[in-house]
Amino acid sequence: MTPASDPPAPGQVWAHVGQPFTPPAARPDGTHYDFIVIGAGRMGSLLTLALTRAAPQTRLLLIEQGGLPNEEGHTILAPGLWTTAHLTHDQHAAAHASRALIEELGQPTPRPHITLHTHPAPGSVPTADALEGHPDSLALIDPGVLTHATTDPHALAYRPGTLALNATQTAIRAGAHLMLNTRAAPHPAGVVTAERLTVTNTHQIITHETHTLRARHVILATGADAPTQAEHHLGIHTRHARAYQQTPHLNAPSTPTSPTLHAAGLTLNPQHGAYTLHPAIHHRDPHGYAPTGGHLTGVPTGLRRETLEDLVALMDALPTLATPALHLGRSLSDIPGSWVALPHGNPHAPPTHEPLDPHTTLLLGGPHADTLGPHTAQELAQQLAGT
Amino acid sequence: MTPASDPPAPGQVWAHVGQPFTPPAARPDGTHYDFIVIGAGRMGSLLTLALTRAAPQTRLLLIEQGGLPNEEGHTILAPGLWTTAHLTHDQHAAAHASRALIEELGQPTPRPHITLHTHPAPGSVPTADALEGHPDSLALIDPGVLTHATTDPHALAYRPGTLALNATQTAIRAGAHLMLNTRAAPHPAGVVTAERLTVTNTHQIITHETHTLRARHVILATGADAPTQAEHHLGIHTRHARAYQQTPHLNAPSTPTSPTLHAAGLTLNPQHGAYTLHPAIHHRDPHGYAPTGGHLTGVPTGLRRETLEDLVALMDALPTLATPALHLGRSLSDIPGSWVALPHGNPHAPPTHEPLDPHTTLLLGGPHADTLGPHTAQELAQQLAGT
Repeated sequence: MTPASDPPAPGQVWAHVGQPFTPPAARPDGTHYDFIVIGAGRMGSLLTLALTRAAPQTRLLLIEQGGLPNEEGHTILAPGLWTTAHLTHDQHAAAHASRALIEELGQPTPRPHITLHTHPAPGSVPTADALEGHPDSLALIDPGVLTHATTDPHALAYRPGTLALNATQTAIRAGAHLMLNTRAAPHPAGVVTAERLTVTNTHQIITHETHTLRARHVILATGADAPTQAEHHLGIHTRHARAYQQTPHLNAPSTPTSPTLHAAGLTLNPQHGAYTLHPAIHHRDPHGYAPTGGHLTGVPTGLRRETLEDLVALMDALPTLATPALHLGRSLSDIPGSWVALPHGNPHAPPTHEPLDPHTTLLLGGPHADTLGPHTAQELAQQLAGT
Repeated sequence: MTPASDPPAPGQVWAHVGQPFTPPAARPDGTHYDFIVIGAGRMGSLLTLALTRAAPQTRLLLIEQGGLPNEEGHTILAPGLWTTAHLTHDQHAAAHASRALIEELGQPTPRPHITLHTHPAPGSVPTADALEGHPDSLALIDPGVLTHATTDPHALAYRPGTLALNATQTAIRAGAHLMLNTRAAPHPAGVVTAERLTVTNTHQIITHETHTLRARHVILATGADAPTQAEHHLGIHTRHARAYQQTPHLNAPSTPTSPTLHAAGLTLNPQHGAYTLHPAIHHRDPHGYAPTGGHLTGVPTGLRRETLEDLVALMDALPTLATPALHLGRSLSDIPGSWVALPHGNPHAPPTHEPLDPHTTLLLGGPHADTLGPHTAQELAQQLAGT
């Protein structure tokens, strides 16, 4: 056996500050790691795994501010739908490469994806025909308004959080190291400061210890926070932006075989015997915007006003939205929500990566991460392994 | 002489609470006025004047929360440009009808409007040719980036505040009444509550007295505030929205004959020997957004972040934006700004009016009010006079 074919020793995991961390000895060039990946959402996790494959025998550290999956990130709230329904033709190859990774790591289940239209569309059939065999689904819709439907029969449903967790665990088995509950910041020249966080008995989050680490290359994969961090720590200004997306609950019955429904930008995602709604993202939210619950003719709701207006506009097409089945909440905290990165400030942009400086790369998923993110992470890993 | 051809007595003006106000005696149907117009920005002023013409011999009251022109509204900050450069063909008739009113009331001056392009466009000429004779203008531009230009030689420059003031004064001479410094709210059945405001010697704004008035018809013309008022007071939910637009100062020399320049959504408006910038409005601001100054790689600015990003993106095309000539400010209060109504939430929508209930109509100007607003006000007056 040559050294290159040795099965690697699994990486270490530092989950809490009770587990002492000592950086590995610096190499002659001053680096402790080949790659430090900041952020173990799905993009960072998939990248780390892809690096173990594209660049085996390298020293890899993945750092995550929370646990796995992080409950404040978009990974845990993303719909987890793989579908080519809303892609341009030249995105199909990336979608199929992503699908292979989702099948390996995401425990997907087949779930048809049905886009509903108010007029005939290429490949559409009458809505009643498309939903034959799905009376629960048909009951949500006014087929007199949403008259036509197109079906992607090859769509998949999966949990992005599961994908991230499996990717991370597989990466660890392949030798990558993982630090959880650690707030990391990128600095010029591949320096990363890592603050290991702990909670006091008065529930304050404090820094237990700080490590200064150096890597040949750092990948910033902190999702909607990444552009701000790039600017704050590296002084590099980008035009990426973010939007706050809420995912309200619709208490209408679904079954494990119910299709995903999509109408006018709204996705109705069958989950737990009911539906999770994923509203359209129309544009960025401005800098300084703090999400706030809305009002509908004086009644406070937990849904932000813009989403509320979109749902009201859809009530003719989806009469169930006008019933108490839609959980409006009373304040923001009643409705799950998270910030979604918008690459280039564009809600339709695919995932992207870009060099920030010679030692740092930004990796962003965004609204198309479900279908295209795994390929983008893999592509970046191959590029980094080649350098 | 028949009574109908008598020159009307001029209307009354109540500018401050020292001038006692007594509503006219109610008529048999309980109304004090035929029309109450709330808001004396340009839309409300033009509507009031148009009503004196379309429905003479009617009782008309125009109510304004501030003075004339109101320093917090968009009327005073709007660019005041009449141009067909960015209109669709079917908007030209409305633009020309508006132009006639602007020429009557707005004291316009001819000012060519030049749209700059990075590629040849229909009717374009090389930028250097279009700006021959305007070396000051050419000095702002990199003609290697903005290579082509289209000129609207028939464009006008005017002050929307002057237009509003002249429209109101002409309406008063024709018999309309005006209450300033009065906060009015529309209620169902044509009821308007009018709070006459005054300032205490500790600089607090308080209500001096409240009047409850009734009109056959109420027109809500309070600009960016109107949709919220419609919902709050009438319980009528609309999809109109608003955006906060700042108008920073560019200290580059202009002359009274300098053309207006427009590039990538940004308008450079020659004013007072320099320029006022009118940045593009891309989309609504979310409910609950409080405008805030931005940061550029850590340095605070008075310009909001989104506008700053747009200006940074234009620095290659307009190198002067990268110099201290651009007044960035240090905090929000350094940069003039106002909320602009976005009819239907759309930054490209023309001005609009719509009935809210049988006794109340909403009138909205928005981003195209400079070129199309006067016609919309006139059209609504003719419609109301016919009912």
